[in-house]
Amino acid sequence: MIKMDAAGLTAFLVETFPQVHSDFAVEGVTEQGVRLRLVTAERHLRPGGTVSGPAMFGLADVAMYLAILSRIGPQALAVTTNCSIDFMRKPVAGVDLICEAVIHKLGRVLAVGDCLIYSEGKAEPVARASLTYSIPPK
Amino acid sequence: MIKMDAAGLTAFLVETFPQVHSDFAVEGVTEQGVRLRLVTAERHLRPGGTVSGPAMFGLADVAMYLAILSRIGPQALAVTTNCSIDFMRKPVAGVDLICEAVIHKLGRVLAVGDCLIYSEGKAEPVARASLTYSIPPK
Amino acid sequence: MIKMDAAGLTAFLVETFPQVHSDFAVEGVTEQGVRLRLVTAERHLRPGGTVSGPAMFGLADVAMYLAILSRIGPQALAVTTNCSIDFMRKPVAGVDLICEAVIHKLGRVLAVGDCLIYSEGKAEPVARASLTYSIPPK
Amino acid sequence: MIKMDAAGLTAFLVETFPQVHSDFAVEGVTEQGVRLRLVTAERHLRPGGTVSGPAMFGLADVAMYLAILSRIGPQALAVTTNCSIDFMRKPVAGVDLICEAVIHKLGRVLAVGDCLIYSEGKAEPVARASLTYSIPPK
Repeated sequence: MIKMDAAGLTAFLVETFPQVHSDFAVEGVTEQGVRLRLVTAERHLRPGGTVSGPAMFGLADVAMYLAILSRIGPQALAVTTNCSIDFMRKPVAGVDLICEAVIHKLGRVLAVGDCLIYSEGKAEPVARASLTYSIPPK
Repeated sequence: MIKMDAAGLTAFLVETFPQVHSDFAVEGVTEQGVRLRLVTAERHLRPGGTVSGPAMFGLADVAMYLAILSRIGPQALAVTTNCSIDFMRKPVAGVDLICEAVIHKLGRVLAVGDCLIYSEGKAEPVARASLTYSIPPK
Repeated sequence: MIKMDAAGLTAFLVETFPQVHSDFAVEGVTEQGVRLRLVTAERHLRPGGTVSGPAMFGLADVAMYLAILSRIGPQALAVTTNCSIDFMRKPVAGVDLICEAVIHKLGRVLAVGDCLIYSEGKAEPVARASLTYSIPPK
Repeated sequence: MIKMDAAGLTAFLVETFPQVHSDFAVEGVTEQGVRLRLVTAERHLRPGGTVSGPAMFGLADVAMYLAILSRIGPQALAVTTNCSIDFMRKPVAGVDLICEAVIHKLGRVLAVGDCLIYSEGKAEPVARASLTYSIPPK
């Protein structure tokens, strides 16, 4: 069922999202989704040095997108229709974030999954998110 | 860290929610939360014989409540502040639902967790939900 | 654009949801949606006499469903795919709830809207909800 | 009840969020919240020239933050705990976005509100979002 591996997803990201691809590193395609790293940089930070909400949202959004593509192959047109995100703890300053995206449903029209985001090396998540993507007809 | 087991949660449910306790059976306290069964009855069904949305919402809500109580002890006053629920598949007719509730954060003021709901015996979830509870000061 | 008025929606509700239609009264079709009343009864209450979370969820769900039908005509097959609900205040005991549903998008595949729920006669909402419905192809 | 006007909010934004303040323009403090403009720039765009999801999320997040501050005064420590956002239409390319934030509850501990985001000059919203903020004890 896996149609794109970490190398394929990375190549797709570089080509399709030239503005943001350097923010991310695909750590791996997992049994139910993907693991994606936010390579934290100055532009992702809020005062105090922690990663901003929009940067965490973007991480979850790209992770779920890649999780879906890893199963359906390269389709640049899938679009996010909903995201519900809970910010639970302050990220550790100066540390990358790791996002575990898991697909719960991959339907003909909609895909649904969950993300957990961690400061690298920590056991407790800083945020959780659920996302729905609309998949265009072929 | 576990302050109430399945028997304690069941006794609490019977005493505190006389209207609804017979809808539910506590299957167990798990490493990160609880497993709760909806004993499906006529009043939970929609035309076609599948469990209704409000019944699934109620299952997720009670499961997360019990998961929190299993860690903090009996406090009838915790209240749901948010629930985001995705309905992904039609439940199987005539079958109980099983809800796996997992706590991601148990803070001083807020608790946050995720639920996955399955038709008993099926591997793919029919719904997912995230919930936030407000915990009153002691 | 309005294809069903309050009388038409009521008739549809009676026929399609015999289990629950008596819970609700269609107050009117509004400029952007519908106004729906929950005729509060014993079965909707939690200890203390306030309306339960599942009953409020059900009110928002049915209100958005009817708002969509009022624009697209009777189609029993539209299904809720997501609901995010915030419980903000305790409902007043012994009082009906009024739900104002507003449609923001009525697409070919998905419909999205917001609900505000009030204890009758109060200016501040007890809950807010956003809902997405999937509309089946004709 | 209004403790900060558009000029006060702008000054606060400049001082507190030096990284992002130039993205936004406070259009006004409204009866129930604020109106905030995203001054669209290259860094907010996705391929095709439309505003990205994270940029829209950031707009809703800052708008609700300023809406809360306009009522409670300058408190840099309020934090977003939840956001549920629906992306409904593609934003118009090359046009600013306007966000209308409305507060539904301003409690001692939590504040809850809704945002609607429009491409400037259009009547139909491109996105809707609901947000919860946690307000720290004084």
